Amino acid sequence: MKSPLLHSVIGVLLVFGQISIAKAQKQPQSRPNIIVFLVDDMGWQDTSLPFWTEATALNKRYHTPNMERLAREGMKFTNAYAAPVCTPSRTSMLSGMNAAHHGITNWTSPQRNEPTDAKDDQFLPAEWNYNGLSPQPGIAHTLYATPFPELLKAAGYYTIHVGKAHWASAGTPGANPYNMGFMINISGHAAGHPQSYLGTENYGNIPGKATPQAVPDLEEYFGTETFLTEALTREALKALDEPIRNKQPFYLNMAHYAVHVPLMADKRFYQKYLDAGLDMQEAKYATMIEGMDKSLGDMMDYLKARHVDGNTIIIFMSDNGGLSLAPPRGGPAHTQNAPLKAGKGSVNEGGIREPMIVKWPGITRPSSIANQYVIIEDFFPTLLEMAGVKNYQTIQKIDGKSFVPVLKNAAYTDNQRFLFWHYPNKWIPKDGPGINYCSAIRQGDWKLIYHMRDSSMQLYNLKNDIAENEDLSKKNPEKTTQLLKQLRDQLKNWNAPMPVDKKTGKPIAITSGL
Amino acid sequence: MKSPLLHSVIGVLLVFGQISIAKAQKQPQSRPNIIVFLVDDMGWQDTSLPFWTEATALNKRYHTPNMERLAREGMKFTNAYAAPVCTPSRTSMLSGMNAAHHGITNWTSPQRNEPTDAKDDQFLPAEWNYNGLSPQPGIAHTLYATPFPELLKAAGYYTIHVGKAHWASAGTPGANPYNMGFMINISGHAAGHPQSYLGTENYGNIPGKATPQAVPDLEEYFGTETFLTEALTREALKALDEPIRNKQPFYLNMAHYAVHVPLMADKRFYQKYLDAGLDMQEAKYATMIEGMDKSLGDMMDYLKARHVDGNTIIIFMSDNGGLSLAPPRGGPAHTQNAPLKAGKGSVNEGGIREPMIVKWPGITRPSSIANQYVIIEDFFPTLLEMAGVKNYQTIQKIDGKSFVPVLKNAAYTDNQRFLFWHYPNKWIPKDGPGINYCSAIRQGDWKLIYHMRDSSMQLYNLKNDIAENEDLSKKNPEKTTQLLKQLRDQLKNWNAPMPVDKKTGKPIAITSGL
Repeated sequence: MKSPLLHSVIGVLLVFGQISIAKAQKQPQSRPNIIVFLVDDMGWQDTSLPFWTEATALNKRYHTPNMERLAREGMKFTNAYAAPVCTPSRTSMLSGMNAAHHGITNWTSPQRNEPTDAKDDQFLPAEWNYNGLSPQPGIAHTLYATPFPELLKAAGYYTIHVGKAHWASAGTPGANPYNMGFMINISGHAAGHPQSYLGTENYGNIPGKATPQAVPDLEEYFGTETFLTEALTREALKALDEPIRNKQPFYLNMAHYAVHVPLMADKRFYQKYLDAGLDMQEAKYATMIEGMDKSLGDMMDYLKARHVDGNTIIIFMSDNGGLSLAPPRGGPAHTQNAPLKAGKGSVNEGGIREPMIVKWPGITRPSSIANQYVIIEDFFPTLLEMAGVKNYQTIQKIDGKSFVPVLKNAAYTDNQRFLFWHYPNKWIPKDGPGINYCSAIRQGDWKLIYHMRDSSMQLYNLKNDIAENEDLSKKNPEKTTQLLKQLRDQLKNWNAPMPVDKKTGKPIAITSGL
Repeated sequence: MKSPLLHSVIGVLLVFGQISIAKAQKQPQSRPNIIVFLVDDMGWQDTSLPFWTEATALNKRYHTPNMERLAREGMKFTNAYAAPVCTPSRTSMLSGMNAAHHGITNWTSPQRNEPTDAKDDQFLPAEWNYNGLSPQPGIAHTLYATPFPELLKAAGYYTIHVGKAHWASAGTPGANPYNMGFMINISGHAAGHPQSYLGTENYGNIPGKATPQAVPDLEEYFGTETFLTEALTREALKALDEPIRNKQPFYLNMAHYAVHVPLMADKRFYQKYLDAGLDMQEAKYATMIEGMDKSLGDMMDYLKARHVDGNTIIIFMSDNGGLSLAPPRGGPAHTQNAPLKAGKGSVNEGGIREPMIVKWPGITRPSSIANQYVIIEDFFPTLLEMAGVKNYQTIQKIDGKSFVPVLKNAAYTDNQRFLFWHYPNKWIPKDGPGINYCSAIRQGDWKLIYHMRDSSMQLYNLKNDIAENEDLSKKNPEKTTQLLKQLRDQLKNWNAPMPVDKKTGKPIAITSGL
């Protein structure tokens, strides 16, 4: 392991371009520790760290000094993507597959065999894998795959999961992080959000009032003022003691329940947001953001104090866009991720573009910015490459692409690659922008959105129009057709779930416009 | 690690007395794995393995072939003891202290600051540590101590807790096994029994119906026919894969929730006990016993299949006597541990004498029987000695005494040692035999019971009168006085909690009769 001092020196040299990246890599180094710091439902603008070309009003609203610090020490990704809702993203990360391919296209219920599709007049639900991901074959309505933590564990990594799991429904193996390759599990289970963030409410564990969302494993904080984010952070750091002492490389899946609803005030930060003029809901949301950021800072401080910061990769990510339904959010609906359109549940940028930062000591340059687009399934091959795991066997075919080349060179560009989003489900009763029954494809700066209800399409140039206001499909029929064909062929190739037309009783097909 | 074959050969040689134990010990051997298989509320006679000088009707009722198998491969203890109820026993085991010394004399509530003493006309509750054991100082109403798993972990053991913990109340650090030195925790928390044993009832995790006893961490079995005992066994074996693969010595605290109430039928075994003529409650109880025994067998099979049985110590134990309240048990009250008097909650033998078996490959002789009395706090120094941990530092002064000398020599005898039981609490509304406000002391075959309500005493000779029917205190005033003085001095020395006399407002003292 490199000393923190040596790393700082290399860092400084890198900034001034005095030595090459390749040279830095040649330093002797043990296998790196890896932390994925995954926030739930955090939007691209829910931070004081600007991810766009300019600082926005939202950047001024929020306080995330530790994200700023991490970005100063590492690489900021301005075009990082996830799926529009949580389970598809989380299972894409664990399986390395696109949601259209693994077929877990919507969030999974904590109860088995309960598809979560809202009722619809036009469509019957698609045949999706509504019980989630499974590390064992033969489980109905699941996708059988090899989760990457299993491969890291087999390679000698000490694997820890803390916080929200939500990879599968209760009653199936994937509900249990211990079955997914994790050696330690704290508070991860089948639920997608906490019943309560408050220790004074036992995080929901109140006799007779507990729901499937009551957070397990935190009894020691019951009755205390400890906000859930803080409790999970303390438990995570406690779990890290063991591998650090044994000099065993670790993988920590630090998956915060924040900032998912229910919106609750983290009292440590509440007053200042009220004083700043935010309404109560938005002030609560801001406190949840800042509490999450404090967790990041606590973790960075801990790594430094334990002298492992120089050999620990931190990847900051969110699992989908910020919630833009109002209520529960304050302000007009679908404005909460401005300049992006819409939010969670949408294939518009507000639903899928994520704040992502990677610090890989000795590899990523301090304060570097990568504009290459990447997507959540890329985490699978990337994490294994970071850990030096090669020639691994998986049940599934991996769709993700390692972004290690980007980490080594922020200017790395691949404008030929296609990214896909596929949401053949009904998330909320009333359709919103890009919400319910939509797919999308991106190549270079071009993005096409396809609406399954009426086969309508929009083509956007994201470089010039990040807000997706100007539909260029009529002006660019060739590009439109090319992207639509690519989308159609890929979905067909993956045998992607499609909603069922009530009139025909058959899954719809993407045909119109071709 | 010795090969299983080599171990078998040594075992056979030992049986025929061809080589000395000392010689067997000289074989090169890595640090042993250790499993404590702790059953909850299991009585001394709740098994087909006789622990008395004769097989009883209860021995004929129950089917525990794997306990028989373990006894054939190891050493049976006929005079093993615990405290009369669970938390005192469990915290004695973890701290190495007698209950009168650690002051956790009664079971702890899953809620903080809720003494569990029943109301009484004569006494106010004693000042006991009703929030349980704490690995951190300064927590109100707890005993601050170093738990032995912390020492095992520090020595390089991979420490796993599965099942019931119940060392402390929610809202205190001791509620969380991760704070007690365990690296893995599955289903251990602040509760003392499961809400349900049934996977079909989600072990209690039903929205709006969950109590603090809903069992955490088993989401994958929700909605299935998996009985709790079976689910915990599978999870435990899964957790063992990791240290076995890494050749790291492990400590497994396999703490079954069975056979505590609620009595529920394990359907795999139910019909045969009904057919045998048992009433429904007793038939259910018998299925819970047999399911627990199957777990033991599955574990032994697993160790063999993984080729670590030759280097794995198994210690079978229960935490207090079998429940003898009727209902919920069938039959007349306080007969369920016959020939022993009373049951759980009592300082009579039925409440404290436990089925204990130890298999230490290469050390314990097959089918050996030890009559030396031992007690639950002895586990602390014994387990550390087994693991080769020496010169360890603890916050607390250890009362327990290693029984390794007994394991090396079944004939080992110490009739001078004193054992103590102290229950200054009110467990149930109506006093029973040895139940509520009683202390006891044993030396050699002599046992004195002291009743705090009226300072009355009974003296028994357990060798001749295991049923504690004949009070010899009048016939043996000297022995009676000697034991009473010893008890009084020890309780005083330990500053043991005592009930408060409502008339004087002061804790009572043991004075009468002296």
